[in-house]
Amino acid sequence: MKNFFSVADVDNLSDLVEEALAIKANPNTEESLGKHKVLGLVFLNPSLRTRLSTQKAAMNLGMNVMVMNMDKDGWALETQDGVVMNGTTVEHIREAAAVMGEYCDILGLRSFPSLKDREADYNEDLFNKFIKFCGVPVVSLESATRHPLQSLTDLITITEYKQVDRPKVVLAWAPHVKALPQAVPNSFAEWMVKAQEQNLLDFTIAHPPGYELAEEFTTGATITHDLNDALSEADFVYVKNWSSYKEYGEVYPVSENWMMDNEKLKQTNDAKVMHCLPVRRDLELSAEILDGPNSLVIKEASNRVWAAQVVLKRILERLNKNI
Amino acid sequence: MKNFFSVADVDNLSDLVEEALAIKANPNTEESLGKHKVLGLVFLNPSLRTRLSTQKAAMNLGMNVMVMNMDKDGWALETQDGVVMNGTTVEHIREAAAVMGEYCDILGLRSFPSLKDREADYNEDLFNKFIKFCGVPVVSLESATRHPLQSLTDLITITEYKQVDRPKVVLAWAPHVKALPQAVPNSFAEWMVKAQEQNLLDFTIAHPPGYELAEEFTTGATITHDLNDALSEADFVYVKNWSSYKEYGEVYPVSENWMMDNEKLKQTNDAKVMHCLPVRRDLELSAEILDGPNSLVIKEASNRVWAAQVVLKRILERLNKNI
Amino acid sequence: MKNFFSVADVDNLSDLVEEALAIKANPNTEESLGKHKVLGLVFLNPSLRTRLSTQKAAMNLGMNVMVMNMDKDGWALETQDGVVMNGTTVEHIREAAAVMGEYCDILGLRSFPSLKDREADYNEDLFNKFIKFCGVPVVSLESATRHPLQSLTDLITITEYKQVDRPKVVLAWAPHVKALPQAVPNSFAEWMVKAQEQNLLDFTIAHPPGYELAEEFTTGATITHDLNDALSEADFVYVKNWSSYKEYGEVYPVSENWMMDNEKLKQTNDAKVMHCLPVRRDLELSAEILDGPNSLVIKEASNRVWAAQVVLKRILERLNKNI
Repeated sequence: MKNFFSVADVDNLSDLVEEALAIKANPNTEESLGKHKVLGLVFLNPSLRTRLSTQKAAMNLGMNVMVMNMDKDGWALETQDGVVMNGTTVEHIREAAAVMGEYCDILGLRSFPSLKDREADYNEDLFNKFIKFCGVPVVSLESATRHPLQSLTDLITITEYKQVDRPKVVLAWAPHVKALPQAVPNSFAEWMVKAQEQNLLDFTIAHPPGYELAEEFTTGATITHDLNDALSEADFVYVKNWSSYKEYGEVYPVSENWMMDNEKLKQTNDAKVMHCLPVRRDLELSAEILDGPNSLVIKEASNRVWAAQVVLKRILERLNKNI
Repeated sequence: MKNFFSVADVDNLSDLVEEALAIKANPNTEESLGKHKVLGLVFLNPSLRTRLSTQKAAMNLGMNVMVMNMDKDGWALETQDGVVMNGTTVEHIREAAAVMGEYCDILGLRSFPSLKDREADYNEDLFNKFIKFCGVPVVSLESATRHPLQSLTDLITITEYKQVDRPKVVLAWAPHVKALPQAVPNSFAEWMVKAQEQNLLDFTIAHPPGYELAEEFTTGATITHDLNDALSEADFVYVKNWSSYKEYGEVYPVSENWMMDNEKLKQTNDAKVMHCLPVRRDLELSAEILDGPNSLVIKEASNRVWAAQVVLKRILERLNKNI
Repeated sequence: MKNFFSVADVDNLSDLVEEALAIKANPNTEESLGKHKVLGLVFLNPSLRTRLSTQKAAMNLGMNVMVMNMDKDGWALETQDGVVMNGTTVEHIREAAAVMGEYCDILGLRSFPSLKDREADYNEDLFNKFIKFCGVPVVSLESATRHPLQSLTDLITITEYKQVDRPKVVLAWAPHVKALPQAVPNSFAEWMVKAQEQNLLDFTIAHPPGYELAEEFTTGATITHDLNDALSEADFVYVKNWSSYKEYGEVYPVSENWMMDNEKLKQTNDAKVMHCLPVRRDLELSAEILDGPNSLVIKEASNRVWAAQVVLKRILERLNKNI
């Protein structure tokens, strides 16, 4: 593995998941792999789970970690070329990325979308430039359109808790008060579609009209506007809000009740409920579910460590071979 | 020791202090104790001494440390149950605490009081919920009503510098420009009262009328409004401002001069002067004292490392036994 | 080496540079030197390169590192004596520095100038007090008037890339939109003047009228207002903006074009172009140069690690001898 940006960076999903679960069983057996290697975590946006779980994964591998809150400890970056930098951006990503690549063996980057300019967000300009200019392997800590460490975590969690060979997995849109990125659902969708192709599960997406995700992520999934239909016989329900892709970043009023609760769960096959967190209680997902036996959200968050660790391990193995 | 939140978590004060002083003499003998263990330090408020001394203590024990400035690197937490989270709080403490408990073996938490709602502050709702939901041992880095690492440090420092078997220790209120929490004086009082019960010292509190601390912390102490009387024959003077407990968070005008200075010190038994820092020079405490031979404030701050280290050591020993 | 604040802390520049280059060739041979030693990095201002490169250098030496963003994780410091602290400053540097000195074996400090009070900035009051009160060796991470880790880096880089025994090095003023400190050019000048004295290079400074640096840094350098003249036969061009020293902190309008570009470079001896970064593209320095073969800016930034490491190594060696 060279970079970790999307599901396209993984050939065999099952192998990666199995390796992550083996690491979970024995987290400290590869401490020499990361010796004298530095992981730099660059945050352009806030982070709790990603920040802590990725640090922990790196420490389990014997790496040193440096955290850079670019928005607070540093300054604003310019990403456009051909610009006379006489405004508020202090440093160009060409220099900033290249310099961080000089100090670190692997870099992690978190960068949220603007939700204003769809084309700019969806061509992942900032992320691609960062990868291009830093010159070292890059792990996405969530980009404008994807959150692959979360999606890998989700597949690990589904594999751990599935009761049938090919469970029915439903991504269910949920209400929110803010306009949220499509990164988590996009990413979950592209991982689940690939998992479906590899016969690991069946994948359905349910959302109100107007909340269609970009087709590049969802082709192959069953897509419906009927939540009840989607929930029928579901083994896992993945609850998540997102804003509109079509009317980019917009939030449409939704008159139907899309909040997941125990009443809705009755239609499922006693489904396990997942969410990437942070979750708005009794808005996206009922407190009743979150505090009850069907919730996997804490175990899911816990698995973030093993997703990060298997990714860092594979990148380190490649680095150590090349050098 | 399971958690470290108040003096009630300690049976024998002398034993704990002696162990801390033994660690001070040989700080690096227990590096294997914390191997592969992670300490997470969660700050909801600023910190200098606590931040650095606790990190250092953990490193001396071979632990890995992750710091989370929740107010800056993260987001606002909801602490109330039964709330529809459609406002400004992004994540419930139930999830946030549980997730951090998955990544860390021990958690430290700093959370100041609001100084607006006495009942909410004094029932330590946030702290108790954090302990309940995180599922791992928690060390208070200062809560709404207590600062136990500071108080243990203070007892260590008194033990080191006492000239008589049972020194007279005075907690003396001092002026300030802001309304400060009662956490440090509450905590100091409950530790000194217990130390008095264990025949380690005699404890007096002096403050202007209206600045009575809550009785749960002070029962057993000699309490007076007469500073001169309190200072008479004092061996240690602990200077600290706090706002009113009765008229919660209020600051009354005090016409008398309560700033500690060399003139006042003359009434003491050449007392050593202590303060938890940060201190407002020539407002709470004269620069003359701070720069003179009677001040222990830097040596006191230095001892924060050994207080943190003995607490982490005891918690680690218990963790290692249980696993 | 006791502290690292200016070129005066170094006797023989060549020896220091050669040692840094030897470390660059073998970065991990001295890991036992810093065992059980703590480096504290205290930032009163933002930092990218200094923050990461100094952390990495310390880790290469086996040190533990604690970072304190005093402006964000802490509070405002008082630096004046004799002040009643009833305003916005929360802690005096006397206590803050002394306490940090208790927790750390070496401290790094970054503190920018006000650019308002020249005398206060140029007597380096804050820095000198920090050194005085902390009681441990201090490494400047950039002070009001100097940036010695940058200057050492620059000399290392010139040594690595020089094609002739005694290259011509030109410090060339460049435009900017903000009033910047003189710290980098001051420091570069005093290092280059000393290098010139030790027959390592020839040093010229070019700037528009009104941008004269303080003579204490530049005596011995060739100084001109004629950029073309300065660039003639230059082997290295060091591009940097600074505000006026005479009319302190002012920015004069400059009608001539002082931005470095390929056209200007034609007058040089195919000079390598340097900049401390962050750089404003097409304002200070053309994108064409930055993306072309003459730019050393990334390699220069990369060398920050070896400058920091040789400095920390020398201080550690002295500490280990004394103890």
